[in-house]
Amino acid sequence: MNQKLDEFKQRMSELTDLGRANAVVGWDQQVYMPHGGAEDRGYVLATMAGLAHDKLTCDEVGILLEELVPLAKQMDPDSDDACLILRVAHEFEKQTKVPREKVAEFAQATAMAEVAWEHARAEDDFKLFQADLEKIVELRREYASFFKPYDHVYDPLLDDFEPGLKTKEVKDIFGKLRTQQVALLQAIAQKPEINDSFLHVAYSEQAQWDFGVDVITRFGFDWNRGREDKSVHPFTTSFGIGDVRLTTRFMADNAPSSLFSTMHEGGHAMYEQGIDHSLDRSPLATGASMAVHESQSRLWENIIGRSKSFWKFFYPRLQKTFPAQLAGVSMEQYYRAINKVEPSFIRTEADEATYNLHIMLRLELEIALMEGSLQVKDLPEAWNARMKDYLGIVPPNNRLGVLQDVHWSSGLLGYFPTYALGNLVSAQLWEKIQSDIPTVEAQIEAGQFAELLAWLRLNIHRHGAKFEPQVLVKRVTGSTITPEPYMRYLTKKYSEIYGL
Amino acid sequence: MNQKLDEFKQRMSELTDLGRANAVVGWDQQVYMPHGGAEDRGYVLATMAGLAHDKLTCDEVGILLEELVPLAKQMDPDSDDACLILRVAHEFEKQTKVPREKVAEFAQATAMAEVAWEHARAEDDFKLFQADLEKIVELRREYASFFKPYDHVYDPLLDDFEPGLKTKEVKDIFGKLRTQQVALLQAIAQKPEINDSFLHVAYSEQAQWDFGVDVITRFGFDWNRGREDKSVHPFTTSFGIGDVRLTTRFMADNAPSSLFSTMHEGGHAMYEQGIDHSLDRSPLATGASMAVHESQSRLWENIIGRSKSFWKFFYPRLQKTFPAQLAGVSMEQYYRAINKVEPSFIRTEADEATYNLHIMLRLELEIALMEGSLQVKDLPEAWNARMKDYLGIVPPNNRLGVLQDVHWSSGLLGYFPTYALGNLVSAQLWEKIQSDIPTVEAQIEAGQFAELLAWLRLNIHRHGAKFEPQVLVKRVTGSTITPEPYMRYLTKKYSEIYGL
Repeated sequence: MNQKLDEFKQRMSELTDLGRANAVVGWDQQVYMPHGGAEDRGYVLATMAGLAHDKLTCDEVGILLEELVPLAKQMDPDSDDACLILRVAHEFEKQTKVPREKVAEFAQATAMAEVAWEHARAEDDFKLFQADLEKIVELRREYASFFKPYDHVYDPLLDDFEPGLKTKEVKDIFGKLRTQQVALLQAIAQKPEINDSFLHVAYSEQAQWDFGVDVITRFGFDWNRGREDKSVHPFTTSFGIGDVRLTTRFMADNAPSSLFSTMHEGGHAMYEQGIDHSLDRSPLATGASMAVHESQSRLWENIIGRSKSFWKFFYPRLQKTFPAQLAGVSMEQYYRAINKVEPSFIRTEADEATYNLHIMLRLELEIALMEGSLQVKDLPEAWNARMKDYLGIVPPNNRLGVLQDVHWSSGLLGYFPTYALGNLVSAQLWEKIQSDIPTVEAQIEAGQFAELLAWLRLNIHRHGAKFEPQVLVKRVTGSTITPEPYMRYLTKKYSEIYGL
Repeated sequence: MNQKLDEFKQRMSELTDLGRANAVVGWDQQVYMPHGGAEDRGYVLATMAGLAHDKLTCDEVGILLEELVPLAKQMDPDSDDACLILRVAHEFEKQTKVPREKVAEFAQATAMAEVAWEHARAEDDFKLFQADLEKIVELRREYASFFKPYDHVYDPLLDDFEPGLKTKEVKDIFGKLRTQQVALLQAIAQKPEINDSFLHVAYSEQAQWDFGVDVITRFGFDWNRGREDKSVHPFTTSFGIGDVRLTTRFMADNAPSSLFSTMHEGGHAMYEQGIDHSLDRSPLATGASMAVHESQSRLWENIIGRSKSFWKFFYPRLQKTFPAQLAGVSMEQYYRAINKVEPSFIRTEADEATYNLHIMLRLELEIALMEGSLQVKDLPEAWNARMKDYLGIVPPNNRLGVLQDVHWSSGLLGYFPTYALGNLVSAQLWEKIQSDIPTVEAQIEAGQFAELLAWLRLNIHRHGAKFEPQVLVKRVTGSTITPEPYMRYLTKKYSEIYGL
């Protein structure tokens, strides 16, 4: 049986290698590829994806799993081998339930939908995207049908990003969150607007880059095992525990954007760098889920990066780096500016108090589409109605509304909730960290992050994808994903800033 | 039968995609990978190589070839389809003749030999490398045995780099070349040494980079379909006709090195960019052979880049770029300096008059090793004896002698001759170009390269790997590879420079 296990692991290592090659190819596509390479690069990525699918779903893996799964269930459930076998078995079961021609049909539909979406957004005409999105919803509903019986038609989609998580759980969490978050926003709306005009002037790109590098270096990003580059959309990718890459971008009219983005991606990257070496070259050498990954990026970007403790250390340095822009701006003014709350149309630019509302809106619409209670043609109207309800504003056009995100055109239904869940998990972890490391805020004020990072490594990073997200979060915090810590965090922070 | 052909082409397209993914992974390894990524990257490259081997040598391809090869022999031999089928059939036959475990054994032996070679070179102790090299020679002799009957034991190795070329042909060519080139060198040795001291002072790296970019842009390198980066060893790689990458490096004590290297790699890159689009995403979307590839790099680097016509246009610009270094240096002085002949120990730094002698030495030793007439243990002595004969100098240690090149440790026996053959072909092409474009030198003096590049595109580039090297060279120049044009070129050039 050891021989079977070895063969299985060897196959999974090769599958991991293939995924990593694909990751390098995808990274280069976004970072350094010249225009002329686009067409051929598309073929390369498609071929590689097909090979990876074949390598996972082949008969040999199926036969090995049949023998190994019963064995895994008798092993210590925390052992690397048991976790590997069961996670791959779950993925194998999912991928083999979907006919190969359906995978190809969906890939083709999303490729066409992405073009249609870009066109529709440019023309600000939802109708140009409607038919393609209808096709995608239809195919996603069919996809879900391959997993019957299920508790909810949205479950199979959610499971692709949050293994084991159910729609009912997410609905419960978001139900509690929505009321409180809307109330907080309404209270803030009564208060005077914060002045953040000094953020929206020219800051040298090179100085921003250097400052961001200094910050994540102090956080603990290991430059011997990673690098940073520029790209249009910031992202993080891993080619192995020893080579994790992040990217950043610079926005002309929004200087802090690059720094917070660097801290965000740095959080993702340190997660990947912190996975235990025993899991390397296996499907477990990645994060537990999208939400757990997002908890790491949001912790560093928001809970730490937008905290007063952080800026007590870094603001004098920032002021010294940008004297012309910040000479007359106090630390308190700067802190308030980067935490300014303002309902806005675009999710990616939303502040902490409004961000989750953008997500809830999308989740509710996705569920309604999957349930069939909402038609694609009625989507713009439903979008705008919810914007009015949750944020009190209505987008003047669909480009600032229902057409703003690429996700649906890429077929990524089920993905949005992971962003908000990541926020919630970050606050759950933060409460636990504060309890385990009473001096953590003082350490941050001194620019010291080593103990904090060690805590994250010990409790989250090293486990890689061994545990399902709810299992991992409960193991670390004592509770599955829950909104209370996040609401406590938001309320405390904004009460102080806005004098609520 | 059209369906079979389509299936065959689809498989070859996917094989090409896989090779391109591997090329991206390899490029990144040399250009941007952090130290920590090395171990995992090795696994990725090995897995990808195995997958590519399987994808070419699988039964399905064998069955398709059995049906398609007879068909190809009835097609127009110049047609893309006939060339594709026959080239893949040749490669399939070669790769399937070698047992899979022998491929793995050789890969393992070279991986170990590379480490041993690095150690031996660092310690300047050939004995530390001897056993590994003996193993490699033994495995290469065994490899050749799979291709019996052959005319010469070296033929199967040569064929890996120069499809269709025979050892006898190479021996004939080099036999003629050696006598003449040694005589030329002896004549030059009687003349006063050229002063090139102004090349070996500090030149700004950024200015060198910009100058190199300007030169290859004027040559016709298409930046929408490629890019340049830095690496320790300069190289060129292609991810498709629309994405061809070159790299350069800067040497502190040798300013022109980077510029000539950029022209050299630019020559390789323009070859890959010039392949006809109809061949893209197929195994024919590459150069005809290593020698034909080298003919392109050497043509741009040496025949053009080290010519007086070239510098008539570029020297005033160079002088303006580096006034401190070149203010008192005339164009004539500069031209003589970059063409200085001086027997030296290291092949990669050799000038045009001595370079081929380094190659001949290696070829003769490789053939003797493969024939069994030379033992690995006697290699250092045989090396030094030939250095004395051909170049009149004896390396003071093995680091500057038999241990200088990585090739043998990588198992690349059969590769060295392609460098010298490339020089010969470049001169054959140059004579034909001068005849077809009588104003070519005047155009170069005016910094105009469009007609020259168009000629190369029409006669060489667009064909990709459709034709074997000897077939292509004969098709274009009327003769297979022959040393006379190169000797005419060298003799004329150096007679003028040295007043022979």
